[in-house]
Amino acid sequence: MNDFPASLNPVLYTEKGYDKLNAFLKKNDPSKIFVLVDSNTHSNCLSQFLQKLETSITTEVIEIESGEEFKNLQTCEGVWNVLSELEADRKSLMINLGGGVVTDLGGFVASTFKRGISFINVPTSLLAMVDASVGGKTGVDLGNLKNQIGIIIQPEMVLIDSSFLGTLPANEMRSGLAEILKHGLIASEEYWRKVTNLADLDLSDLDDIIKESVDIKARIVKKDPKEKNIRKTLNYGHTLGHAIESYCLTHPDRNKLLHGEAIAAGMILETFISHKLQDFPENKLQQINGLIKDMYGKESFSADDISEIKNLMKFDKKNERGNINFVLLKDIGAPVVDITVPDTVIDKAFEFYLNN
Amino acid sequence: MNDFPASLNPVLYTEKGYDKLNAFLKKNDPSKIFVLVDSNTHSNCLSQFLQKLETSITTEVIEIESGEEFKNLQTCEGVWNVLSELEADRKSLMINLGGGVVTDLGGFVASTFKRGISFINVPTSLLAMVDASVGGKTGVDLGNLKNQIGIIIQPEMVLIDSSFLGTLPANEMRSGLAEILKHGLIASEEYWRKVTNLADLDLSDLDDIIKESVDIKARIVKKDPKEKNIRKTLNYGHTLGHAIESYCLTHPDRNKLLHGEAIAAGMILETFISHKLQDFPENKLQQINGLIKDMYGKESFSADDISEIKNLMKFDKKNERGNINFVLLKDIGAPVVDITVPDTVIDKAFEFYLNN
Repeated sequence: MNDFPASLNPVLYTEKGYDKLNAFLKKNDPSKIFVLVDSNTHSNCLSQFLQKLETSITTEVIEIESGEEFKNLQTCEGVWNVLSELEADRKSLMINLGGGVVTDLGGFVASTFKRGISFINVPTSLLAMVDASVGGKTGVDLGNLKNQIGIIIQPEMVLIDSSFLGTLPANEMRSGLAEILKHGLIASEEYWRKVTNLADLDLSDLDDIIKESVDIKARIVKKDPKEKNIRKTLNYGHTLGHAIESYCLTHPDRNKLLHGEAIAAGMILETFISHKLQDFPENKLQQINGLIKDMYGKESFSADDISEIKNLMKFDKKNERGNINFVLLKDIGAPVVDITVPDTVIDKAFEFYLNN
Repeated sequence: MNDFPASLNPVLYTEKGYDKLNAFLKKNDPSKIFVLVDSNTHSNCLSQFLQKLETSITTEVIEIESGEEFKNLQTCEGVWNVLSELEADRKSLMINLGGGVVTDLGGFVASTFKRGISFINVPTSLLAMVDASVGGKTGVDLGNLKNQIGIIIQPEMVLIDSSFLGTLPANEMRSGLAEILKHGLIASEEYWRKVTNLADLDLSDLDDIIKESVDIKARIVKKDPKEKNIRKTLNYGHTLGHAIESYCLTHPDRNKLLHGEAIAAGMILETFISHKLQDFPENKLQQINGLIKDMYGKESFSADDISEIKNLMKFDKKNERGNINFVLLKDIGAPVVDITVPDTVIDKAFEFYLNN
């Protein structure tokens, strides 16, 4: 496990992944294994996963409720208490089997329990496979502020088994696809073209697409593990997207948006801003706007909504000294970071989004 | 700040310390400074400390309640929320001005806020100066289990100004002295002799004693940052001591013990066990027992108390695979780690403690 830079964890796929996982268990002989699941992965993924484990080590299952609204400190406290009651020690291993809520929260819980126990992530959603699998971000929300509490720490390994996607609802697939689209926009026009022609693809293509997305993210994280510069580009669409997600999460009269659904809207808005401020080509803006709205539909935002969303952006983790920093694009594959955007341009972006 | 090993932080003293702190502020130009205090250090230390700061950076003060019973996740959540409200960003700096609760909790809060902001510790209790100043342990209690949640991370620097001790109550001084005594017992008979003749010492000696204690701890942590082996010796007296502390903290009919008071009792118990299992010299056991009881008095423990204390030891962070691991001494300055102790010997240790 030592041939990876400190800022990256090994990502392994399906059969080879299970072989490595079983070899890891044999070599490290953890005192106990704790598999963290949510109610969905408990039903849909756990038994398939446990069948692949070849070990006689005591294995306990800890279940949390599913959904972003449970990605909070109260859920952490519950899991920490169960770990204590079940006498987890520093040689225990946690395996987080689930989507981004389970892997982000589980990584944080493990790495802070008794000042840190080992953990392995087994993402079961497309979003977690292509986004949370690399980079070591862990954490939970604070009130309606996304991922405010957490640390960066690497799991021992990440095991991606795309057969878990068989039970994933269509809206969750679409949510993961948004991060794949983002990887294309910030890093590779060729990849962007490939993934926007998904209609022609079958499941074996999906494996390749996941790998390519993971590779794009890994290349970026490796260059800038501490997010001083190029790693910020992974936040494309997220400055407005996160604020939209937070806003919808806490307004009972709005439909909750999945992460990728909010990021999809954020990418249209930020591509418009890129066009205004960085000469991003207009024809590609139109193409992106059309493509994303075909897949994700269009959200409605009143003037009040927009004002509250803009207010939420001031909690964005990329902000410095009161400035809200955007990632923008000069072209597909050509990002720039730390751009301050005038308020009027943000308003115009919402106008474009709503009227096109 | 780069000439220290990754596992150690710089420890600076009084005037030179303030010079370095001001130089740090000038060089790093944090976006805001947040000084975390408790109600005691707010009254007794804050204005003296702020007078030494030479900076025009906006400085906010965050106060928590004082006492071990507030070293918990609820207090963390309160501080995280205030940081959010006051728009702390990743360039903000937190300065933890207080005893071990403030530095342990403040370090954890800072290093998990937006996945980590910089922090500096300014310990104001003797215990925090000689114990929490080196090694990067941060964290909070989970229910009555001490320091179950936390991470190891280094502050930018630690500034020790012994003039803060002028307002420290006598029992708090005595609590800090227990860790100084421990450093003698595990590392140096000469230092042990020096610190057990404290009656002859004045405040300038205290500065030297603090430095020597910090140096002993730093040497040990440097050799074994991950606590695989020799760093465990810093837990001498703590296996039983922590359990006694937890027990007294949660039983309303018992006086709460300060950390060092509990460790003092733990050191007598574990020195007796060392005598039984590791041939620690009997005359020194008697001397240690007499000396510690002269300073700390004797606690009473019923059979029920002892049974509950033994039960609490199973949550000790050094445990592995269900074994409770003790640090014992072959002699003063000659520790051994990872020793399992039969239950009957623990009972005999309590008998010795109560009857001598």
